[in-house]
Amino acid sequence: MTFSKIAIIGPGLLGGSIAMAARARNVAARISVWARREEALRGVEQLGIADCVSTDLKAVVAEAALIVFCVPIGAMSPLAEKMAGYVPANALVTDVGSVKRPVVESLGRIFAGRARFVGSHPMAGSEQTGIEAARADLFEGTVCIVTPEGNTPPEDVRLAREFWAALGCRPEILTPAEHDEVIALVSHLPHLLAATLVNLVCEQNADSLNFTGSGFRDTTRVASGSPAMWAEIFDGNREQVRKSVLALIEKLKGTLDFMDDDTKMRQFLTDAKSRRDSLKIPKI
Amino acid sequence: MTFSKIAIIGPGLLGGSIAMAARARNVAARISVWARREEALRGVEQLGIADCVSTDLKAVVAEAALIVFCVPIGAMSPLAEKMAGYVPANALVTDVGSVKRPVVESLGRIFAGRARFVGSHPMAGSEQTGIEAARADLFEGTVCIVTPEGNTPPEDVRLAREFWAALGCRPEILTPAEHDEVIALVSHLPHLLAATLVNLVCEQNADSLNFTGSGFRDTTRVASGSPAMWAEIFDGNREQVRKSVLALIEKLKGTLDFMDDDTKMRQFLTDAKSRRDSLKIPKI
Repeated sequence: MTFSKIAIIGPGLLGGSIAMAARARNVAARISVWARREEALRGVEQLGIADCVSTDLKAVVAEAALIVFCVPIGAMSPLAEKMAGYVPANALVTDVGSVKRPVVESLGRIFAGRARFVGSHPMAGSEQTGIEAARADLFEGTVCIVTPEGNTPPEDVRLAREFWAALGCRPEILTPAEHDEVIALVSHLPHLLAATLVNLVCEQNADSLNFTGSGFRDTTRVASGSPAMWAEIFDGNREQVRKSVLALIEKLKGTLDFMDDDTKMRQFLTDAKSRRDSLKIPKI
Repeated sequence: MTFSKIAIIGPGLLGGSIAMAARARNVAARISVWARREEALRGVEQLGIADCVSTDLKAVVAEAALIVFCVPIGAMSPLAEKMAGYVPANALVTDVGSVKRPVVESLGRIFAGRARFVGSHPMAGSEQTGIEAARADLFEGTVCIVTPEGNTPPEDVRLAREFWAALGCRPEILTPAEHDEVIALVSHLPHLLAATLVNLVCEQNADSLNFTGSGFRDTTRVASGSPAMWAEIFDGNREQVRKSVLALIEKLKGTLDFMDDDTKMRQFLTDAKSRRDSLKIPKI
């Protein structure tokens, strides 16, 4: 598929990678990129992955067939409000936010009657940020969750799916509420756990990091992510995250109860291994 | 440094990697490898990393200057008992067990007056097992904790440190009790958390693994480790692991208490990031 023009709002890790992947896979005839600051645009210019880079939002979205919000979730609504007056009426608007209920509610309302909005969440990224970490193959083999509401036209959902598939993703459909519930479990809880583990370990034993191996490195990798971005994510999905943390605490207490029982411990570890071994997530 | 002969007891991921690293770095004039089963020796033979491979324990340890136990911790004592009658009197004996108090207590007692024993724990490995996963650079840049007791001769500690340094490790010294306390925090707790997280997520939402990304993949990698090996580790360090789990539960409850406070959440995530960023563990 080819879009006549894709406008990418925010040239960070995800925005930059979308531009690179779209260019590499010929997904758009033209690519334009917006950033708040001139300096942020220079990396995009140097990489030569966009036809137009600008701090002028109106120029960037003019004639766009697809607009992708790649800024932190807290910055999305103000930018959408600003854009609403001149967004092309037939443009499909989507985003890459890690929380979907508040984003879809807010952007859906802002773009209602002005453009076509469908939320998205590509499960791609890393603990790194910025265009320096962007890569054309970031999306290959990863899932992208597209989150239509009940009244979203099927044609808009189909187009969003096709866009992500064209970048290399495997698109899946969930409602915004279903998304926030399952992503609390598989992404937000693991992040909170990693940060809690790092802080606990350092507070219990100031020398502990000196004795860590590859297990600790990988278990805690996500804790190196942007604190500002993750504070927004936790705030946006607070109730589901809270529910997941409470469920984990109960599960940990259950594990403590059978730690003396070798048969149960082996079954518990065997279940975890077979489930973990079934994951098919590309290592890039 | 060069040992006249190194005997490796158990040709798994660690035993195989020790043989490969010792050969590549010229750490031993001769390398011999013991395995319980003939089939297990074939992989070692094919790799050409040992001068002698055998199921005959006596032949493997004969004239060894260094003997390294690389079998699961539950198999160490029976093998040590068997070996005690003919172990070379001047041999340095060490091991790679992930728990040190019970191993050092048992092997120290068995080899007392018969050979020189010092416990070790190289913080290297992966969720994979077996000679197929072995690699010559497994130890490069990793820490190896050497765990002498109060009455261990300094010369034996020095020799153990030099051996691990020769394989590429950074040797550190802890008592067996100190080791078990800090490793409960940085290795055993993360493993239990990863297994608990995988099981929780699958039990809460049967489809959840379909929506995971690289964060979940890395956070849970260690849960793919051997259930039998890890059940033994948890059993061997049960009280310290229990203490760590209870501390983590308290820490998680504390996090829930300030989740509504944006300033505290950002500080919590910033602390975790700066601590995690300070890790220097090679990515191999």
